[in-house]
Amino acid sequence: MNKDLKKSLEVLKSGTVQILPEADFLKKLQSGKKLKIKFGADPTAPDLHLGHVVVFNKLRQFQDLGHEAIFLIGDFTALIGDPSGKSKTRPPLTEQEVEKNAKTYLEQVGKILDINKTTVVYNSQWLSKFKFDDVLKLAGKVTVARIIEREDFAKRLSENSPIGMHELFYPLMQGYDSVELHADVELGGTDQTFNLLMGRFLQEQVGQEPQVIMTMPLLEGLDGVKKMSKSLGNYVGLWEAPDIAYGKLMSVSDELMFKYYLLLLNKTESEIKTMKEEVLSGSVHPMKLKKQMAYDILAKYWSQDDAKFGQEKFEALFQKKDYSQATEVELKKDFKNPVWIVDLLKELKAVASSSDAKRLIESGAVSIDNQEIKEFKAEVYWKSGLIVKVGKHKFFKIK
Amino acid sequence: MNKDLKKSLEVLKSGTVQILPEADFLKKLQSGKKLKIKFGADPTAPDLHLGHVVVFNKLRQFQDLGHEAIFLIGDFTALIGDPSGKSKTRPPLTEQEVEKNAKTYLEQVGKILDINKTTVVYNSQWLSKFKFDDVLKLAGKVTVARIIEREDFAKRLSENSPIGMHELFYPLMQGYDSVELHADVELGGTDQTFNLLMGRFLQEQVGQEPQVIMTMPLLEGLDGVKKMSKSLGNYVGLWEAPDIAYGKLMSVSDELMFKYYLLLLNKTESEIKTMKEEVLSGSVHPMKLKKQMAYDILAKYWSQDDAKFGQEKFEALFQKKDYSQATEVELKKDFKNPVWIVDLLKELKAVASSSDAKRLIESGAVSIDNQEIKEFKAEVYWKSGLIVKVGKHKFFKIK
Repeated sequence: MNKDLKKSLEVLKSGTVQILPEADFLKKLQSGKKLKIKFGADPTAPDLHLGHVVVFNKLRQFQDLGHEAIFLIGDFTALIGDPSGKSKTRPPLTEQEVEKNAKTYLEQVGKILDINKTTVVYNSQWLSKFKFDDVLKLAGKVTVARIIEREDFAKRLSENSPIGMHELFYPLMQGYDSVELHADVELGGTDQTFNLLMGRFLQEQVGQEPQVIMTMPLLEGLDGVKKMSKSLGNYVGLWEAPDIAYGKLMSVSDELMFKYYLLLLNKTESEIKTMKEEVLSGSVHPMKLKKQMAYDILAKYWSQDDAKFGQEKFEALFQKKDYSQATEVELKKDFKNPVWIVDLLKELKAVASSSDAKRLIESGAVSIDNQEIKEFKAEVYWKSGLIVKVGKHKFFKIK
Repeated sequence: MNKDLKKSLEVLKSGTVQILPEADFLKKLQSGKKLKIKFGADPTAPDLHLGHVVVFNKLRQFQDLGHEAIFLIGDFTALIGDPSGKSKTRPPLTEQEVEKNAKTYLEQVGKILDINKTTVVYNSQWLSKFKFDDVLKLAGKVTVARIIEREDFAKRLSENSPIGMHELFYPLMQGYDSVELHADVELGGTDQTFNLLMGRFLQEQVGQEPQVIMTMPLLEGLDGVKKMSKSLGNYVGLWEAPDIAYGKLMSVSDELMFKYYLLLLNKTESEIKTMKEEVLSGSVHPMKLKKQMAYDILAKYWSQDDAKFGQEKFEALFQKKDYSQATEVELKKDFKNPVWIVDLLKELKAVASSSDAKRLIESGAVSIDNQEIKEFKAEVYWKSGLIVKVGKHKFFKIK
């Protein structure tokens, strides 16, 4: 193996969970051919967070090495919704929602991929042309047993939780996309393994060289435990203000920091090993590495200016305790005074719901002018200049 | 209930296994409306035998009572093949085969239905227009659990015998046909119960008055044990020569004879009860009833002339031992002599295969000029005028 290939292989393998089969992957790379690298996503939710970024980032690495990045927008599959890892049938999106989401999606993806060099395709281009007999021919290529052995389907069946028959088509459609695109490699999260293998299987059925599948880990959210997800609240959204994003990133554990370096900043495993050793030996303070990570993530997925702004604001608030950097909010003159603390937090948009507020108050994460509010039912007086702190990183100043 | 309705109900219920739900059926009949009675068959095999006739015959009864008989030719569903009661995926028919079979089918059905008053439809008319999203919408109406709980699917799954995913669509397509046709009643064999109920279910889903399902027994073949089927050899085919058909019908047991009276000749259950009593009391000889049955079946599904011809030939052969009525076959001069008995039987087209010949010989059913041939390996001499008897009803005379 020559040096360039060895280097490429190290870059491409870093952070992956599985490459199946690895021997085929090496063969494809060695062929010297420009490989077609497919990554598909359904435009079911328009907002990308850092959890989504991991696979896009791997796609970008292939792109930087001269391969063809194909970003497939599953506008047709979105009409069903991927049942992977789901325990319920998803309500179908309308065509309008799908179209709108696809647009927002592409705008955000432009932050990660070199969009001018990216082949963007929509699977409605071919799937919408299928007639009933095409569907049956496709379905005839797989057995029922093979489909329902899929982990989430098997689980739902055993729990008597209903699976719509249309859901069985999701893996088949995703697999057929690979046939249509003649994909060499398909990327996805580990929860996509079954669907990715289906692409490989269907390509073999029609006599194509089957794709290699490459899975990436599901990124843990800020809590370091659960998969990053909007509904769990442990996310950093690409749409968020840079100071908020920076602050959130600073709250992760040291262990998670190294994972973010690997999966979001493309540090190789050997580089990360070095960093860990520097921390252990005391030659580098973890806080320094964490600020660097937050700065680099902002610089990469937002902008250099955003990274600077986020860092300055963080330093002012948390390191210099300068509340002049807090988010200023103006309350209407006739706003209740005194007011129930929960209503105040909602007015400041500091919490998403009353139960969110309750949880924060009871965990001691809410204070007013440095006075902790411990009682969920508390009523408080407000005035101009008051500082409300919520959680570790959110400060509000009443105008 | 008025007298006419009561009479209709007796006629329509006779011979049925299930009417679901019976109360709805009565309501539909009482409405006085011309009901749409659907019976569908896939043109997978072109040759109808008496086993197929049972349901057509019920359809004819509805037709005679003024209802609309809809005969659906499943030219689209034939491309999958009904997996009902099957233990293997069926190889798909080509469009040419389906077209050819449909044509022969209709010709034969004309012997049972009043074809001028029959609405003949092909389900390709609507199913071939389905696009992928229509298919998904249809599939989304049922759960996987509901489909795979179907007896034959469940059995195949538990035996690890493969089910193609396309096969799951069969019941859905058949069900959708009822939606398209606004069927009031759907007829079928008992093995169709699941598919028929699916029609009812899908009609309900789209807000139609659901169809009543009416199932007919699967007719036992000549052996009186197994379902009549071409592959089991226990059939009487509508395409067979009248003397062969007559002879075959004369070989059934008395018990089976009554069933044929019920299901093929529309005798009501009370009429059959009377016949049985006459046999028991000795006032009628069962042979007389059996000849009447054979004659009536021939007259109904072949022609009056065929019935006469069949009866005369039977009487000559079996009752008067007049071999002049045997099928004459000319052998080529250079045909081996002596010849292995199996080769002779094959040449006379008296057996379908060597194993068929072996079975017949070993059960003592083959004789030459009244001399029983007991040895499978026997060599025999042939000459003009030789009488070969195979089974109970086949006589051949060498020219």
